[in-house]
Amino acid sequence: MTLAPTLVVGTGLVGTSVALALQAAGRLVVLADSDEAALALAVARGAGRPLGAADEVSHVVLAVPPSAVAEVLRAALASHVGATVSDVCSIKSLAALEIEKNTPELARYVGGHPLAGSERGGPAAARPDLFVGRPWAITPHLEASPVALAAARSVAVDCGAQPIVLTPEAHDEAVGLVSHLPQAAASALAATVGQHASQEAFALVGQGLRDSTRIAASPPQLWAQILGRNARAVAPFVNELAERLAHLGRELGRGAGEAAVTALLTEANAAVGRLPGKHSTRREAVDVVIAVLKDAPGALASLLADAHTAGVNVEDIRIEHAQGAAIGAARLLVLAGRGDGLAAALSAAGWSVSVEADEPAG
Amino acid sequence: MTLAPTLVVGTGLVGTSVALALQAAGRLVVLADSDEAALALAVARGAGRPLGAADEVSHVVLAVPPSAVAEVLRAALASHVGATVSDVCSIKSLAALEIEKNTPELARYVGGHPLAGSERGGPAAARPDLFVGRPWAITPHLEASPVALAAARSVAVDCGAQPIVLTPEAHDEAVGLVSHLPQAAASALAATVGQHASQEAFALVGQGLRDSTRIAASPPQLWAQILGRNARAVAPFVNELAERLAHLGRELGRGAGEAAVTALLTEANAAVGRLPGKHSTRREAVDVVIAVLKDAPGALASLLADAHTAGVNVEDIRIEHAQGAAIGAARLLVLAGRGDGLAAALSAAGWSVSVEADEPAG
Repeated sequence: MTLAPTLVVGTGLVGTSVALALQAAGRLVVLADSDEAALALAVARGAGRPLGAADEVSHVVLAVPPSAVAEVLRAALASHVGATVSDVCSIKSLAALEIEKNTPELARYVGGHPLAGSERGGPAAARPDLFVGRPWAITPHLEASPVALAAARSVAVDCGAQPIVLTPEAHDEAVGLVSHLPQAAASALAATVGQHASQEAFALVGQGLRDSTRIAASPPQLWAQILGRNARAVAPFVNELAERLAHLGRELGRGAGEAAVTALLTEANAAVGRLPGKHSTRREAVDVVIAVLKDAPGALASLLADAHTAGVNVEDIRIEHAQGAAIGAARLLVLAGRGDGLAAALSAAGWSVSVEADEPAG
Repeated sequence: MTLAPTLVVGTGLVGTSVALALQAAGRLVVLADSDEAALALAVARGAGRPLGAADEVSHVVLAVPPSAVAEVLRAALASHVGATVSDVCSIKSLAALEIEKNTPELARYVGGHPLAGSERGGPAAARPDLFVGRPWAITPHLEASPVALAAARSVAVDCGAQPIVLTPEAHDEAVGLVSHLPQAAASALAATVGQHASQEAFALVGQGLRDSTRIAASPPQLWAQILGRNARAVAPFVNELAERLAHLGRELGRGAGEAAVTALLTEANAAVGRLPGKHSTRREAVDVVIAVLKDAPGALASLLADAHTAGVNVEDIRIEHAQGAAIGAARLLVLAGRGDGLAAALSAAGWSVSVEADEPAG
């Protein structure tokens, strides 16, 4: 812990959340934003005090949009000659950010990218626990100093995140696939549904469409910068996805849809089975205990209290309900082999339950 | 409630769940399946007894794959001349199911489609509450009798679902858009990610990709029949989605990605805002209270018990955690205006919390 303050430049959702988290970790935090209203709001939320002319900061975290990173970085390196600098931008290659290379000061900069956020932007959504348990990419460029790397990593750790170190180029390729492509896919799906959906179609909407389009509520301008600047990495993935769907459309159109869908879903099943879940890089086998839940105050708390009394730890939970329904179902995920015992205990406590084995597909 | 039994033909996930639900609603249920092992499993699970030669059934529910509906329907109408017949198939137009029209017995048939299921098929996943609170489409064809319509509707109601009556053709068009298209999109997305993802990319996977590809774990053969037989309705939607993505890929490729992404996400934002949520056809404004959750036994139950003590009803809950993390965050959704009170109470009880206003996008 250093006594010199950490400066956070940019007090939007992520910047304000970083400031709140670093303060909670015991750091002294000062704030700057070219938008005085945003700065005042962040100060009022207790995220720190405004940067003073006499402040000598030890580290600067840039939390500005991708289009502003290069200029704000240059200014930060010039203004705070004793400080290391990191950022939280969703793209990391120096070329994509238009950061001038081969300047000696650039050794003091190492990029970072917390894999957290929200469909909703803005400082009102900021919270100190935004990054808890989330991956946080740390992307040293070729000229970066070890001190700058350690400083960038320390920001991630102090925010409660899990640092993952990789090159800027590997980062951009990876998020192009696992973050930017899903954003494009979910958005195009939502737009297509919105274009055609009747009242009747909306009445038949299930959890599948809701889950598939959740991130389609994300802010357009921010994602336009992200995808636009990572176009080199993401365009081939978008093109492949488009071609897979065009192929499916052609096969459906010529009456050969069954074979095409079988092949596609078989490949998709295997891919989903490889996605990391909680606690491991592969999805673990778990039991799912489903309990019918009346829409009464305290029903959920009462259910979980009964589960706790039964001595079974609930790893995760999902609530399912349909449009207009005053009743739903809670899916409690527990370690494999614990489901039957929990179900028996809940049943004895008066709950209507059933158990489902949730084997990983892969 | 009639004393004559209801016959369920086909004891897979949906058929066995229907049988369990109808028995729970007080009906006498008999079962049939051409697969003797599946039938024995359903009987062993207490879903009913096997159909006897002397049984006179009042209603038959067909829970067989789309490709088998026409033949099994013809047999059921011939064998049970006093019975009405319904089904649970995901496609409903007589043409898509290859059901012969203009036969007088067809008046006793009305189709049904519960909008529920699971990524995982098979009788092991069956449960009596599978349909609770879910939409259940009832699709009378032009020659259907009112008695058959009432019988099909009664099955849905006895299973705890919400019946929605519409024509078979309107149904197929609607589910082609809100169910079959998302299935195609999620599957193609998962397959593309699986094709290219490195270890590093998997480490950066967040909730967005997980949500967007959840249904890609669905069984290939079943969905091949569904999409294959609803090709007329779904192919144009798949083609439009492919063209939207191809357009985005082209714009990204020629350096015009920002404008294309802005336009796409603006349209997507509006569409997601129109999706139905709980209790209404539009998403309601809610507050989200976020609490840091240590991975300790009973933490969730304890949190919800404290929420209940605070007198605030939790409408929905999501748990967020990242790969390998032993700590996460619980997002408690409460009615708008109740978030601050709940946060204060939880904070007083020792929880680390914050509040987020979750305004609907539309």
